[in-house]
Amino acid sequence: MYAHEIEMISKILIAVDGSEQAEKAFQYACYLGERCKSRILLLYVIEEFATIGYSISKEVEQEKAEMLQKYLIRAKNILSTDVDILKTKGDDAAEEILRIANKENADTIVVGSRGFSASKDFLLGSVSYKVMHYAKCPVVIVR
Amino acid sequence: MYAHEIEMISKILIAVDGSEQAEKAFQYACYLGERCKSRILLLYVIEEFATIGYSISKEVEQEKAEMLQKYLIRAKNILSTDVDILKTKGDDAAEEILRIANKENADTIVVGSRGFSASKDFLLGSVSYKVMHYAKCPVVIVR
Repeated sequence: MYAHEIEMISKILIAVDGSEQAEKAFQYACYLGERCKSRILLLYVIEEFATIGYSISKEVEQEKAEMLQKYLIRAKNILSTDVDILKTKGDDAAEEILRIANKENADTIVVGSRGFSASKDFLLGSVSYKVMHYAKCPVVIVR
Repeated sequence: MYAHEIEMISKILIAVDGSEQAEKAFQYACYLGERCKSRILLLYVIEEFATIGYSISKEVEQEKAEMLQKYLIRAKNILSTDVDILKTKGDDAAEEILRIANKENADTIVVGSRGFSASKDFLLGSVSYKVMHYAKCPVVIVR
């Protein structure tokens, strides 16, 4: 077995939410992507319980669209490989991350150790833990 | 910020125990190490509760020494970077992995999603979970 001959990391899914932890995860994923010449999928999950009412929903979506655009520009500056933006809606961020990772055949998922929830009462790291526990591919937990 | 200019993954700690999950973690770590030109630390934790009695202890240690030697030879075949072997003893594999990672300033820890225990009754993934939860650096959980 010669590991360097295997394309082990060709598609990296990185979940971002604007938090400090997600920023670190983003930097790590870009580093990994550039070194491994991997395609990068930038995923943002719009949590459905955060979209209560038309005006809040519009505002949140606009803000997140701008955030994603900034990540995309930075990723394209760093990477010589393809970068794609993905958005999804759901009431469980971890389930959405897992669903998209499977659908897109990501071979590595990078997440921050905490932060992936609009609710501050969320158990620390519960999303990371669920992703780590149920993912079919390797998961990088960045802190 | 240009991620490719940052040496984010220069020392990778990989914990091995002879399990199938650890084998996958080993392959992933070698791939990562070669792509990122990182030094690799191969760690084996001798669990103290497994060393009951002189003869068992000697037998286990001999077996594990041979296992580590095989990993070392394979890693050196794959990697153009430095590979080191580390052995430690303790009754908590996760704590030993964390202690060595801190002591050696590892900047990424790679572990299998389960398998790091001589006890078959151990909660699945409890070692991976503890490492993921308490590590000061990014952790890759491989399955």
